[in-house]
Amino acid sequence: VFETLSVDRVYEAAERIRPLAHRTPVMSSRGFDEEAGLRACFKCENLQRGGSFKIRGAANFVLSLPREELPMGVVAFSSGNHAQAVAIAARFAGTHATIVMPSDAPRSKVEATRANGARIVFTESLAEREAVCRGIAEETGASFVPPFDHPWIMAGQGTAGLELIEEVPDLEALIAPVGGGGLLSGCGVAVRAVNPKIRIFGAEPAAASDTFLSLEAGEHVGIEPPVTLADGLRTLRPGALTFPILKSLAEAVVLVTEDEIAAALKFVLLRMKILIEPSAAVAVAAVLFRKLPAEVRSVGIIVSGGNVDYEVLRAL
Amino acid sequence: VFETLSVDRVYEAAERIRPLAHRTPVMSSRGFDEEAGLRACFKCENLQRGGSFKIRGAANFVLSLPREELPMGVVAFSSGNHAQAVAIAARFAGTHATIVMPSDAPRSKVEATRANGARIVFTESLAEREAVCRGIAEETGASFVPPFDHPWIMAGQGTAGLELIEEVPDLEALIAPVGGGGLLSGCGVAVRAVNPKIRIFGAEPAAASDTFLSLEAGEHVGIEPPVTLADGLRTLRPGALTFPILKSLAEAVVLVTEDEIAAALKFVLLRMKILIEPSAAVAVAAVLFRKLPAEVRSVGIIVSGGNVDYEVLRAL
Repeated sequence: VFETLSVDRVYEAAERIRPLAHRTPVMSSRGFDEEAGLRACFKCENLQRGGSFKIRGAANFVLSLPREELPMGVVAFSSGNHAQAVAIAARFAGTHATIVMPSDAPRSKVEATRANGARIVFTESLAEREAVCRGIAEETGASFVPPFDHPWIMAGQGTAGLELIEEVPDLEALIAPVGGGGLLSGCGVAVRAVNPKIRIFGAEPAAASDTFLSLEAGEHVGIEPPVTLADGLRTLRPGALTFPILKSLAEAVVLVTEDEIAAALKFVLLRMKILIEPSAAVAVAAVLFRKLPAEVRSVGIIVSGGNVDYEVLRAL
Repeated sequence: VFETLSVDRVYEAAERIRPLAHRTPVMSSRGFDEEAGLRACFKCENLQRGGSFKIRGAANFVLSLPREELPMGVVAFSSGNHAQAVAIAARFAGTHATIVMPSDAPRSKVEATRANGARIVFTESLAEREAVCRGIAEETGASFVPPFDHPWIMAGQGTAGLELIEEVPDLEALIAPVGGGGLLSGCGVAVRAVNPKIRIFGAEPAAASDTFLSLEAGEHVGIEPPVTLADGLRTLRPGALTFPILKSLAEAVVLVTEDEIAAALKFVLLRMKILIEPSAAVAVAAVLFRKLPAEVRSVGIIVSGGNVDYEVLRAL
């Protein structure tokens, strides 16, 4: 049992976010299983509201705020899925969101976030954005919604794992992509509580292996800004709260190459007919290219999202 | 009630094909509904076994054959979804399939059909293929599995509509793409039996409007081989058995342009995160571009399949 996150918090989050987040389907594919040599269950967060699992954590956070803080709004920094999720959750809660984005954020993400009613503030540099965000929070009284390193966020993300393990309780293993570690820590706590024997794995791009390196070292290791297709996994170090949980629960973080990420995305698109984003393809690639221990016969894959830029998709 | 097809035959087909065809999910999308101005329910046959609804008719046909005819095998002509469906159904029934294909059929379709255990026979010309097929049937005693114009096929395809209307009984309208008319006639009979008020529409590419023209004329009208993205809808005339049913049930066949087909495919891919084939996108485009009467507030769309050639997808 972890101080920062127990499965009870995940159950509570599941109740809290019910009006806002979909219960996404669990898919399987004979063709995939043949290729990968095991039985895989895909938890389809690409079909989630806002196109990714991020709505779970954002909704749990916003709906956990004290009632008197809501009118001041919320603020977050993100150029991707967290931005849309926070905007959707804020609108649902009847408040307003300010999203801090890099000035070179893809136009499609800016438009999608704006379409959900958020105000956008652009910053020039990555280094600046957290400071800008905290400045807005101090000035306006808005609540800062962190991307991963908070018990409410982790508990919210864990509801994806909870739904999966309720539907397929006998899975031998779980795998999820690791950016900041909010998704894997939350899901890990949830699935382990329901199935104490389940083996837990993370997946990272070889080019962005901060959690892999940190687990090897037994302590936080930072990396330089990585170049990877998996834009959701470009965090530079695991979270202060997420890492201890991953250290305790995860058997390993497996690494995949950029080519494997692209091949997994294409396989799922052309054979299973669903669009997944490169970050989600990282976990799928780990299974498809048999990076799990050979004796694992069944695995649940958290397919984290489906938001792919048109240009990126065409380049593949 | 039609002589060739009653809803009881569809119910029987549903029982018969249960071990072989998936019950596909029904999806909806807030973003699509906003764009289209009504509530749309997508019956996802792109997630069907073999990647299209065709397994329903093929399975119902093969499993309806007298037991003593099965050992002689089955034969069909198709370069697309029907080929894979017949191969899968034959293997399941413990017999063998011969598929007659044009010699320039896409390599991916040839491989997929072969991977399902079928023998492939190539013909030079489109005109030849039915003759080659019937020749094989006569020589070997194999049963010919027609692509659409047979009560068993129509009843099988109708099970997609039956599942949809059971799940969403209050739909005001149904729309499906029309090639030979097997899908729409089967689904039309099924949904009308459950919901007698439902309005029924077909969708065709403007470039392949044989059923549209035939309905206008009140009799079979043939067209020249059409040029359209929707490779599953290139039939030259409606079927002898399907047409009388369409004439009686369908309020209209609506036409869409090639640009609208491509735009609908892209919208569904990037916003709903599922891959649909151009033929399926024809029905989606008809709704997205508001070709239905303005007073229709809800529609079920039969998303017929998801098999898209990689090259075609890239060209879009």
